[in-house]
Amino acid sequence: MPIGLAVSTVIFALRPDSSRPDEPSILSIPLVRRTRDPFAGRWSLPGGVADDDESLADTAARKLYETTQLAPAYLEQLYAFGDVDRAWSGRVVSVVYWALVRSELADQAAEGENVRWFAADELPDLAFDHNRIVEYALWRLRNKMEYSRIAHAFLGETFTLAELRRVHEIVLQRTLDPANFRRQIESSATVVATDEVVSGGRHRPPRLYRYDTTIRLADNGPLGG
Amino acid sequence: MPIGLAVSTVIFALRPDSSRPDEPSILSIPLVRRTRDPFAGRWSLPGGVADDDESLADTAARKLYETTQLAPAYLEQLYAFGDVDRAWSGRVVSVVYWALVRSELADQAAEGENVRWFAADELPDLAFDHNRIVEYALWRLRNKMEYSRIAHAFLGETFTLAELRRVHEIVLQRTLDPANFRRQIESSATVVATDEVVSGGRHRPPRLYRYDTTIRLADNGPLGG
Repeated sequence: MPIGLAVSTVIFALRPDSSRPDEPSILSIPLVRRTRDPFAGRWSLPGGVADDDESLADTAARKLYETTQLAPAYLEQLYAFGDVDRAWSGRVVSVVYWALVRSELADQAAEGENVRWFAADELPDLAFDHNRIVEYALWRLRNKMEYSRIAHAFLGETFTLAELRRVHEIVLQRTLDPANFRRQIESSATVVATDEVVSGGRHRPPRLYRYDTTIRLADNGPLGG
Repeated sequence: MPIGLAVSTVIFALRPDSSRPDEPSILSIPLVRRTRDPFAGRWSLPGGVADDDESLADTAARKLYETTQLAPAYLEQLYAFGDVDRAWSGRVVSVVYWALVRSELADQAAEGENVRWFAADELPDLAFDHNRIVEYALWRLRNKMEYSRIAHAFLGETFTLAELRRVHEIVLQRTLDPANFRRQIESSATVVATDEVVSGGRHRPPRLYRYDTTIRLADNGPLGG
């Protein structure tokens, strides 16, 4: 029997917890409830069988759209999971992607009986090896936040340094000193101050920043992206 | 038609160039000559169809052994290549691994009419998209040399700091200042001085070092490795 090939995506966004809507946003991922065995009724990563006519990344982006009606601000291949016994019936290799979605869009993302957002760190028992896959994706996201510039993908075009710091704090799950954070960001030279400030009648409105788009968001070397 | 699944491996070793055997070792990879169309006669990465009963990493290690009669000191998944038109006949997704092989073993590796080692930076036109795959593997290797401890996999159990520096110089293709390199390695606390020195009657024989094995060779996070 030929080995099956699936594409799944771990989608991250910062979103208010639906059970605590007045609390600050948390790192969240959308999951799909399985309607068929194996694991009927369990939550799982959005995905499905790879399409003959599409690149793997295109399939990942399409499944992401079908599940959430969103387009990703960032999409990267995570890993190909291919353990012999991971699929229960037959052999399936899953090429898994991870994606970041802007918070302002994620707030409006569709939910329904079979699609729901969960706190990334408090997931139920998922179908197949999907808990392990999410654990690895979380590790990659946190690692990458420390040495690259992907926090930006959660935010809009412009943002305050306080907003950028909050993204780091939520993802890394620790409090960061505002003055140290500002120094670090300024010395990294990856963000650029704009001429704009946050509108509204404040006495000293905070300045808006944007990422330096001459620097690539994610460095995949010769693969581009 | 179901999508085919292949496993290929980019194998790196430091080896004398066969056309210049008296020169210092260079970064080399073994290639296999294709005996069938498409691309009959062209050189390609060792690999083949994924096996139903084996994990992807086991298939990669087995193909590596079948090609070179060697076991890798380091083996890591590189990327799943899945462009629609990359296989010429039908659709094939290749899960590619990269491996490091100890130099002392690579010197004895089999060569034959259809298996030959090439300088990694001077490859001929390879079959399929294999030039692009090697380019990406080279980028990953060089990147990883800068921030992790994989240089060790090219060397034996113990080595001198000069040998370790030579590995970095060959892979990164630049000369490194010996005193700076020593300071950097010593402050990184990843190598440990042994009580041994290089044998032979020298006045001040260089000390042998080993890697601190309490630190993991490659950090794949929750995937282990």
